[in-house]
Amino acid sequence: MAKKQESFVEFIANPKVDFPRWYTDVILQSQMVDYGPVHGTMVIRPYGYRIWELLQAQLNERIIATGHENAYFPLFIPESYLRKEAEHIEGFAPEVAWVTQGGDEVLTERIVVRPTSETIFCAMYSKWVQSWRDLPMKLNQWANVVRWEKTTRPFLRTSEFLWQEGHTIHATPEEAEEETMLMLEVYREFCESVLAIPMVTGRKTEKEKFAGAVSTFSIEALMQDGKALQSGTSHNFAQHFSKVFDIKFQNKEGQEEYVYETSWGVSTRLIGAIVMVHGDERGLVLPPRVAPHQVVIVPVAAHKGGVSEACEALYERLTKAGIRVKLDDRDTVSPGFKFNEWELKGVPLRLEIGPRDLEKNQAYCLRRDTLEKFNLSLDDIEDSVKEILDSIHDTMLEKARAFLAAHTFDAHSLEEMQDRLDNGRGYVRAMWCGDQACEDKIKELYSATSRNYSTDPNDHIDDVCVCCGRKAQHLVYWARAY
Amino acid sequence: MAKKQESFVEFIANPKVDFPRWYTDVILQSQMVDYGPVHGTMVIRPYGYRIWELLQAQLNERIIATGHENAYFPLFIPESYLRKEAEHIEGFAPEVAWVTQGGDEVLTERIVVRPTSETIFCAMYSKWVQSWRDLPMKLNQWANVVRWEKTTRPFLRTSEFLWQEGHTIHATPEEAEEETMLMLEVYREFCESVLAIPMVTGRKTEKEKFAGAVSTFSIEALMQDGKALQSGTSHNFAQHFSKVFDIKFQNKEGQEEYVYETSWGVSTRLIGAIVMVHGDERGLVLPPRVAPHQVVIVPVAAHKGGVSEACEALYERLTKAGIRVKLDDRDTVSPGFKFNEWELKGVPLRLEIGPRDLEKNQAYCLRRDTLEKFNLSLDDIEDSVKEILDSIHDTMLEKARAFLAAHTFDAHSLEEMQDRLDNGRGYVRAMWCGDQACEDKIKELYSATSRNYSTDPNDHIDDVCVCCGRKAQHLVYWARAY
Repeated sequence: MAKKQESFVEFIANPKVDFPRWYTDVILQSQMVDYGPVHGTMVIRPYGYRIWELLQAQLNERIIATGHENAYFPLFIPESYLRKEAEHIEGFAPEVAWVTQGGDEVLTERIVVRPTSETIFCAMYSKWVQSWRDLPMKLNQWANVVRWEKTTRPFLRTSEFLWQEGHTIHATPEEAEEETMLMLEVYREFCESVLAIPMVTGRKTEKEKFAGAVSTFSIEALMQDGKALQSGTSHNFAQHFSKVFDIKFQNKEGQEEYVYETSWGVSTRLIGAIVMVHGDERGLVLPPRVAPHQVVIVPVAAHKGGVSEACEALYERLTKAGIRVKLDDRDTVSPGFKFNEWELKGVPLRLEIGPRDLEKNQAYCLRRDTLEKFNLSLDDIEDSVKEILDSIHDTMLEKARAFLAAHTFDAHSLEEMQDRLDNGRGYVRAMWCGDQACEDKIKELYSATSRNYSTDPNDHIDDVCVCCGRKAQHLVYWARAY
Repeated sequence: MAKKQESFVEFIANPKVDFPRWYTDVILQSQMVDYGPVHGTMVIRPYGYRIWELLQAQLNERIIATGHENAYFPLFIPESYLRKEAEHIEGFAPEVAWVTQGGDEVLTERIVVRPTSETIFCAMYSKWVQSWRDLPMKLNQWANVVRWEKTTRPFLRTSEFLWQEGHTIHATPEEAEEETMLMLEVYREFCESVLAIPMVTGRKTEKEKFAGAVSTFSIEALMQDGKALQSGTSHNFAQHFSKVFDIKFQNKEGQEEYVYETSWGVSTRLIGAIVMVHGDERGLVLPPRVAPHQVVIVPVAAHKGGVSEACEALYERLTKAGIRVKLDDRDTVSPGFKFNEWELKGVPLRLEIGPRDLEKNQAYCLRRDTLEKFNLSLDDIEDSVKEILDSIHDTMLEKARAFLAAHTFDAHSLEEMQDRLDNGRGYVRAMWCGDQACEDKIKELYSATSRNYSTDPNDHIDDVCVCCGRKAQHLVYWARAY
């Protein structure tokens, strides 16, 4: 009879049979997250939060290296600010949480719990900027935001989530455009280099763009169920908000001009992408660069001579080499239980050490990504582990790239589009005339939305729109999406 | 006639004449902070936020090193949670911001924007804990909290502020007490070692303790106007909340028991303490370990042969040595303007390099704390700068300690207490009987509150209470306070 503790790892749904349930099982049982008491909120537990911290540190480095500074703007925004820009209030009002009372006092003006901070950055910028010498101003903040969503799922769509939002103002439209594209590229590179997730990058259609932006660009990841996940956006506002918020500066010629503005953000949603891009039937498979523990050491027959000591020594050596290691020396559960638990938790590399391994001066290893097993000499194990972690990253990225390539299809007719969406499960690339009516029709017919489109005029597979047959404008990536 | 840019550094009030106005002048003109549009909110600008990031990193290190893990709990708490514990709702209800509407939907239960997170940590802990094996659980979060305050001042008392809050649960009362005292000591050591601020540590009276705690301990700093600033607290809840929230565990003997709980926090208020403990008539004086720029390099006669290049080379060398350096190579303002600006901004060490300095292979230096001027050889300047930064820290701490000692008085009668409060400006140490009536009377008479009291029975200066003459219980630190 199995001991009670052996059942710690409960049944996880088969991702091939019930992907949504597999997702929920994995994130809850790996203790990344739990449900908060207020509708749609989440408690990010230490294992999930550590992933966020590691992700944050490596993205923040890139944000600072590209000339931005961090700041912190208030959570509370006056209702009047949100109302200044018509598209913006229309887009966000349905999902705003309203504060109407402070202590015993009923407020004369309602307060918005920030769903995004364009309006308050604009208000402060208009106070701070006078001359071209003050430009550009390139600020970023790491903060929580609230969107009152009807249907929620941890990390993917929650009433409150954590994100970074950059807001920049510039003296010329060219600089704003450059900034918009720079940050899109920072996101794309970061997701590949750190999360091992390849992204489809491109521009959003008018229908799908951010409320108030002139142009929105996005990075889109493909989940293993064939659905796309918008993973980050970069917006160019041109002078749209600066005119509304009166952000003027004196240019070099001494004339007053409105600034050009951008904003861009990624959120805890990226953790959902990590789960759904890399996970498998055993649970999480974490990219080594954001894994809380890159290596777990499991002693086998720990009571036998020297095993505990050898594991501790190995722990010290790897830690000293800058590797994030967990030594699982619990004596209340069996090695088998530990194997299951750390596989569920997606630790990239497992090292087992038992008496026979010690005799041979080696550790018995499991790579979580490929499930390959092999021995490693203890002599130069710091170097081998570092190489393997890099190799795991590269292999995971290649596997995700191959999946993306194998699930991206060209369609030259609506029938083909439907077939690929239903049977291919992934992106369908098809030409589009630029008319929202065709977008609406495709969404209605197939529940697929335009994810984004290439801005390169050479990206062209047909002369006519897949939907209406009129002259084609853009090669669009269509998909069902989260 | 002075150039327009020379007037960047506006008039700052004399701290000896108008300390509150000096404080506001300094924090606004150094661009640490600005006022947000919603009552009592603040915008933490990059210069202030960088101080927070540096402070946060060094405190977080200590929190993790003492066995805690970071997590993130929701901003929104159901009203019913706050109401579960009577003292807690009574203490916080007057300053809660209430969310009553989500999108177009009026909520059936009002939502609290967290003023502190005991209740939601408790609710989750009660779900997560089963056996003694799960204990202790020691979580911390870095988050924003909201308290709807009537009278506000940036950093000191704001409607929204940033903080960390640790919440831990334990199997025994001894462990909870140990944790409470451990974190108090972590705070005290951190404030000395990183912020160069000496603290008075001790226990709060029943009147002044946290709403719902069994005991509260605090660190209290003394500002240069003689007022105390509560700078951090550590609370022991014993089983007070665990009974209300039903957080039970099975102990080693197989019996059900309620857990023992603590919480502890410090906030962006610490930035206010830095300003008011160290600042002078020229502006900020920043402790080197949290200064965004530890060193500023100002080229003098930058157009002369080699000056620019030498300044850039010095910038590279110091940066490479791990020092946070700013090279102020603006050609739109004069060196004199730069001197004023960086003094206002409190940069610990200024290095000037002009043609004559170059000839002598040296930099001309100003220590911001002592205003001493001296030359440093460029040969081994990395080492000298590091030594000077450490010396600045030590000198600032010693100066603050001396101020604290010179402004701490013993009083054996109410008349003496009044005299010391009015003329000594600082702490008055006096014995207290333990009765709240005496505390209330002292507050009413002199606007002074009990800050905290020593738990060491040997701390004793009289046998009787300074107020009523009955048997004395505790040696209390009394002060006017922020």
